[in-house]
Amino acid sequence: MNIPKTSTPRIVIIGGGFAGISLAKKLSKQEVQVVMLDRHNYHTFQPLLYQVSTGALEPDSIAYPIRKILSHYPNFYFRLANVEEVVPEKKIVRTDIGEIFYDYLVLATGSRTNYYGNQSIKENGMAMKTIPQSLNLRSLILENFEQALLTDSLDEQDALMNFVIVGAGPTGVELAGALAEIKKGILHKDYPDLDTRRVQINLIQASDRVLQEMSPVASKKAEQFLENLGVHIWKDVLVTGYDGETVTTNSDLTFQTATLIWSAGVMGATVNGLNAEDLIARGNRVKVNEFNQVEGFKDIFAVGDIAAMSTEKYPYGHPMMAQPAIQQGKHLGINFERLLNNKPMKPFSYYDKGSMATIGRNKAVVDLPNFKFQGVFAWFVWMFIHLFFLIGFRNRMVVFINWAYNYIRFDREARLIIRPYKNPKTKDEETQVA
Amino acid sequence: MNIPKTSTPRIVIIGGGFAGISLAKKLSKQEVQVVMLDRHNYHTFQPLLYQVSTGALEPDSIAYPIRKILSHYPNFYFRLANVEEVVPEKKIVRTDIGEIFYDYLVLATGSRTNYYGNQSIKENGMAMKTIPQSLNLRSLILENFEQALLTDSLDEQDALMNFVIVGAGPTGVELAGALAEIKKGILHKDYPDLDTRRVQINLIQASDRVLQEMSPVASKKAEQFLENLGVHIWKDVLVTGYDGETVTTNSDLTFQTATLIWSAGVMGATVNGLNAEDLIARGNRVKVNEFNQVEGFKDIFAVGDIAAMSTEKYPYGHPMMAQPAIQQGKHLGINFERLLNNKPMKPFSYYDKGSMATIGRNKAVVDLPNFKFQGVFAWFVWMFIHLFFLIGFRNRMVVFINWAYNYIRFDREARLIIRPYKNPKTKDEETQVA
Repeated sequence: MNIPKTSTPRIVIIGGGFAGISLAKKLSKQEVQVVMLDRHNYHTFQPLLYQVSTGALEPDSIAYPIRKILSHYPNFYFRLANVEEVVPEKKIVRTDIGEIFYDYLVLATGSRTNYYGNQSIKENGMAMKTIPQSLNLRSLILENFEQALLTDSLDEQDALMNFVIVGAGPTGVELAGALAEIKKGILHKDYPDLDTRRVQINLIQASDRVLQEMSPVASKKAEQFLENLGVHIWKDVLVTGYDGETVTTNSDLTFQTATLIWSAGVMGATVNGLNAEDLIARGNRVKVNEFNQVEGFKDIFAVGDIAAMSTEKYPYGHPMMAQPAIQQGKHLGINFERLLNNKPMKPFSYYDKGSMATIGRNKAVVDLPNFKFQGVFAWFVWMFIHLFFLIGFRNRMVVFINWAYNYIRFDREARLIIRPYKNPKTKDEETQVA
Repeated sequence: MNIPKTSTPRIVIIGGGFAGISLAKKLSKQEVQVVMLDRHNYHTFQPLLYQVSTGALEPDSIAYPIRKILSHYPNFYFRLANVEEVVPEKKIVRTDIGEIFYDYLVLATGSRTNYYGNQSIKENGMAMKTIPQSLNLRSLILENFEQALLTDSLDEQDALMNFVIVGAGPTGVELAGALAEIKKGILHKDYPDLDTRRVQINLIQASDRVLQEMSPVASKKAEQFLENLGVHIWKDVLVTGYDGETVTTNSDLTFQTATLIWSAGVMGATVNGLNAEDLIARGNRVKVNEFNQVEGFKDIFAVGDIAAMSTEKYPYGHPMMAQPAIQQGKHLGINFERLLNNKPMKPFSYYDKGSMATIGRNKAVVDLPNFKFQGVFAWFVWMFIHLFFLIGFRNRMVVFINWAYNYIRFDREARLIIRPYKNPKTKDEETQVA
């Protein structure tokens, strides 16, 4: 990997998400060498991925080059790499670009989509955990409408215009709301020769309310907002399979659709070499102690989604969201300073700042620790917070301009099929006519 | 294709570039049915593609949904399609989504990269005529630097950091200037552990000056600007091949590089079925008369790059640029109105508004018909004109913000490898660790 060996301890961080970046920032002024590995050269602001999928934003608005975030820090090294395994007894990480020795290793690998072993959904459904996946979904949605124009079969048209979203957490709810806004504001203009009133958005939830991690009042209000937008909500329904045409459930209920979006769960993105049975907690997360140390190791830590720190309030680990990841990353940075100065580390404690979700234009639900509210004001709070947490002044400006434009014009202009998802028509597209 | 047959004449336009869109706009108020076919669902503002390649802009800033441009026009139909052939005797166009009858057919297919039959360059070189190609080039440039970090071989590093641009027209010159700015402002910050002073930008031209379609004074000044930026200009050099590692030329001169960008020529993107020998002029363009009628046909027209209209000043057809395309498209729109009202058509005459090219920060060359100037003012003019010609208020705003930010910060933030070009590491990237 061509990284010089220095006398300062080397901390290898796997993953440049919220946890990894927060940690790296805290380490920037310490006497350590930091090596960050990620399979992308950018940090992704995941809470806005659904806006990439629905053509409201482009990737560069919610992605930020990792090298740029950390370019001011001396003794910081980034490598674009896929991690293959960790070998704790040798203190090395093996990757597709070679292996690297660590003094301390931090797993900040985040989470990936959890299909709960359902192969048919994994193969035929769409996920929305990364930018390429979100762009694929954008292409597919637009391709569906182009294809719907070409058929006389009403059944085929209905399937192409039916969007089935499984999982009504924030991602599912926000995507459903955005699709409903597109139906209302854009589709009838773009496709005047298609009866876009027949577009269906079905949101399926296994439990008895949407946004089940939020308060009951937020759930209730969100359901009301969604229903007003014409979203069909199905509660207590368990999706059991999808062959690319039919969604089956645990009852007689089925859906004919060309698009199933799976937002029903995530699981820790574990790394090979640490998969010992007794290390892995519920949700495929790695068990850590109150200092984010992986059980049984002094020199391996885990932060963010991948880390399961059992506490009284969260026996199975903190929620797999941005806030715990950011807080754990920061906290571990402070603990490293103590550790390297032979001081005892401090236990992590999570400060729950609350959670929120937006449901289309002028509508959001916000749960703060002591205050819950919904509607237009919540929507402004949602926007402000998301703008604030975006990295980079330019990103904030561009997102703000896009939101303002989209709001005023009831529009989203990035409805471009840059890379077709279905039947990519041409590899060397220049050799094609027209 | 599910397009209703009406009593008004049907005009089928193949291609949604400058020519096709200008024509469609002129037809919007006429008593005709317009069907536009394109293999993309967006119009591309090609003059700024090099800014997508170099991470200054995202695709949505220079692309615009065709459906949106024309959504206000009644009796207008867009279909996403690859044209396979035209059958003039049956008056139909065959495509991958079925065939369509036309009363009038307009070829607005534009141009594609001309490799002059050189297969090695076509296979191993990069082109920059479409958005996917420009994004591929962006990924490749960034991947080269990531790869250069991993090797101890100086030769390999040099090849990865050597950019060979063949063809010093506006595209080649603007790309060379942008790469030189990146070298100066960004690379040493992003890659502190790489000696980025060794980055080379080689611009190769077969003739004896760059920008040979512009005035000698513009060429001279552009060469001076480029040289000040550290670009190596090679004139009177003919590139003969590229095997992915070595660029060969008509002399002993060779270049070792991982990246050859081919901007040395374009050719008409002809359509099967009209390829009769005597119809095709120099540059693979279709011969048209002064009304843009394809030779030998009353009902088939061609506009823009694909059309070769021989005039006294342009015996081989007008320059293959935006302006002739826009003007021919508009003019044909007016001629259709006359034709359909049984009035004689008017011959096209080209009004040369001049041409321009920018060479990095604060530097551009502008040739107006009666006035030629270079430098900072030319650069402002270049920016103003390009902002003005972009379609859509939002695009202008977003491009303006990006340019202002990039200018103030010496930066370009879209340096993201969204879809790797070399060794795409993972198909289903979520199954990967890290």
